Amino acid sequence: MTATPWAPDPKLDLVLEREIDVPRELVWAAWTQAEHIPHWFTPAPWTVSHCEIDLRPGGMFSTTMRSPEGQDYPNIGCYLEVVPCQRLVWTDALLPGYRPAAEPFMSAMLLLDELPGGRTRYRAVAIHRDEAGRQRHEEMGFHQGWGTALDQLVAYAKQM
Amino acid sequence: MTATPWAPDPKLDLVLEREIDVPRELVWAAWTQAEHIPHWFTPAPWTVSHCEIDLRPGGMFSTTMRSPEGQDYPNIGCYLEVVPCQRLVWTDALLPGYRPAAEPFMSAMLLLDELPGGRTRYRAVAIHRDEAGRQRHEEMGFHQGWGTALDQLVAYAKQM
Repeated sequence: MTATPWAPDPKLDLVLEREIDVPRELVWAAWTQAEHIPHWFTPAPWTVSHCEIDLRPGGMFSTTMRSPEGQDYPNIGCYLEVVPCQRLVWTDALLPGYRPAAEPFMSAMLLLDELPGGRTRYRAVAIHRDEAGRQRHEEMGFHQGWGTALDQLVAYAKQM
Repeated sequence: MTATPWAPDPKLDLVLEREIDVPRELVWAAWTQAEHIPHWFTPAPWTVSHCEIDLRPGGMFSTTMRSPEGQDYPNIGCYLEVVPCQRLVWTDALLPGYRPAAEPFMSAMLLLDELPGGRTRYRAVAIHRDEAGRQRHEEMGFHQGWGTALDQLVAYAKQM
């Protein structure tokens, strides 16, 4: 079964693409093992106060982000595709077990390509319902937020 | 990777379960090949005026139902799990390519178990966001509609 071809729509999607000096096996581990998430997932001074991962299609990807003031913001998503070290897809349009969610915002895709010298081409895509959703996410600071998280992931992975 | 365990929630889900006298390979073909869908999918006198299937996770499951008065009702969904002859999962909470949809109503799961003598245990599950969605679907005639479609599938499969 071929994977879904990835063709971002510039009006609806946001993409972070970068080549990083981390082998993709470590990137995959950082994204898919709950104990690693708090070390990089939220740009400081925000933290991750809870993370639960059930890594399979239909399984739970739950993270709770805590603001510097101590307020918790839970987010529950559902994994859609899990192709180890290559491709991870999840959405908040569905709860675990594929139940439609009340307030869908986006699906997301992580695509990892192996590069020579233990490097990785890292692409993270946020897939929105409409242009307003994309714009809202951009204004919330998608590029800086996801970029800073990736900086943190790279720094953390070097000592994993 | 284990499949998501199926545990219906009686407050939120609707289930049609029946043992049918059709081998599951034929049931699978009837559900997953676009040319078969018009022969059984809509309870007569409704018809299927269009069907498009891209059978893979993230692929399109599109059907247009035509009323006896000639009005078309298109429905576009996204496949989530495709396990040949065993398990088909799709949702209208996502468009093909996993983009969140504007008006999600349900996800659905088809589960087929082989029985002796070329028979099949057939389970179709409609998974709703909330109790109101489940109730609306029940009042729209879930059991009769999906039951009649299954009668038609069985009759059609015997001459496939």
